[in-house]
Amino acid sequence: MFISFEGIDGSGKSTQARMLAEALRASGREVVLTREPGGSPGAEEIRRLVLEGDPDRWSAETEILLFTAARRDHLERVIAPSLAAGKVVICDRFADSTRMYQGLSRGDLRGVVDQLHVLMIGREPDLTVLIDIDPSVGLARAKGRQGTEERFEDFGVGLQEKMRAGFLSLAEEFADRFRVIDGAREPEAIAADVLDVVQAELPN
Amino acid sequence: MFISFEGIDGSGKSTQARMLAEALRASGREVVLTREPGGSPGAEEIRRLVLEGDPDRWSAETEILLFTAARRDHLERVIAPSLAAGKVVICDRFADSTRMYQGLSRGDLRGVVDQLHVLMIGREPDLTVLIDIDPSVGLARAKGRQGTEERFEDFGVGLQEKMRAGFLSLAEEFADRFRVIDGAREPEAIAADVLDVVQAELPN
Repeated sequence: MFISFEGIDGSGKSTQARMLAEALRASGREVVLTREPGGSPGAEEIRRLVLEGDPDRWSAETEILLFTAARRDHLERVIAPSLAAGKVVICDRFADSTRMYQGLSRGDLRGVVDQLHVLMIGREPDLTVLIDIDPSVGLARAKGRQGTEERFEDFGVGLQEKMRAGFLSLAEEFADRFRVIDGAREPEAIAADVLDVVQAELPN
Repeated sequence: MFISFEGIDGSGKSTQARMLAEALRASGREVVLTREPGGSPGAEEIRRLVLEGDPDRWSAETEILLFTAARRDHLERVIAPSLAAGKVVICDRFADSTRMYQGLSRGDLRGVVDQLHVLMIGREPDLTVLIDIDPSVGLARAKGRQGTEERFEDFGVGLQEKMRAGFLSLAEEFADRFRVIDGAREPEAIAADVLDVVQAELPN
């Protein structure tokens, strides 16, 4: 089973991905916890190429191509072999993040993102957990851990609000695989809800 | 005017691209001589990512995505602005090389290469000069300058023969922009033919 976590910066999705991995391992499942952009040695190199240096060094279109190259490598080298071996794969961000961050925030590129996804990736998660949170709360959390790679977190509250609305709209568009969880609570309460929705879908 | 040079390894196309640039500059034209993969600072970084290290580190599909990302950057930052400024752009390899090296040599990926080109690049050269040569002659020339990046030249004569046939077939497919020049002669004789076909197309 392939599970992705999505949400705006500071939503707590990385914490929840980790907590879910721990809970599933405790119940005896083999779990691969990974992330995007990156997740395989080659994809991590592409990640560095995109996220380090001058934020304007790549156009939105080139950035989409680089992220898709990284995703293809990650899928081939980590996700697909792990699924084939019967493991649960939990991925912190996947293609929905590209649909939002490149397709929504940087011009009307959603169509290009989708066509590129169909052509070169062609696979969605079985389940996507959207951790939904008010952007002002998310931004305050994200600012506490600002690093050199965190340029996507410099967008400000206005853009994060657009992102939140975009993710919620994506959850309606792909209602079969999306589950929306309220992220404005204690991590343990959120984790319990996440485990519920995952266990409802997990094969025995 | 946007002119590309294509041909198998050791065909002499890089020498011919340089000689054409010199001839056109001598006649008073502004010329940008560039190459692929690479040609802009970002694209050169992607080139290093693809061509250095273990040849099997990327799948054919990931490699196509990385080359297309490099081409998009090169087009945006160098080729398109130079053409807009009225300069002649001469490029040592362009999308036809991806059609051949990835689309022909590494599985039946020509369709993917073409779809990606339409989606993310969408532009062909105005004129493509194919320097045609017998692979045994080309390979002997290429081996004289083998470097760490030259893994594409390790394919051997059999594959180079397939490439030669592929380039000639491409020249028929895109007969409006391709000109085929016999490369098995002295550089000066070839350069004279190249200048002839270019001058026949150049606006005054």
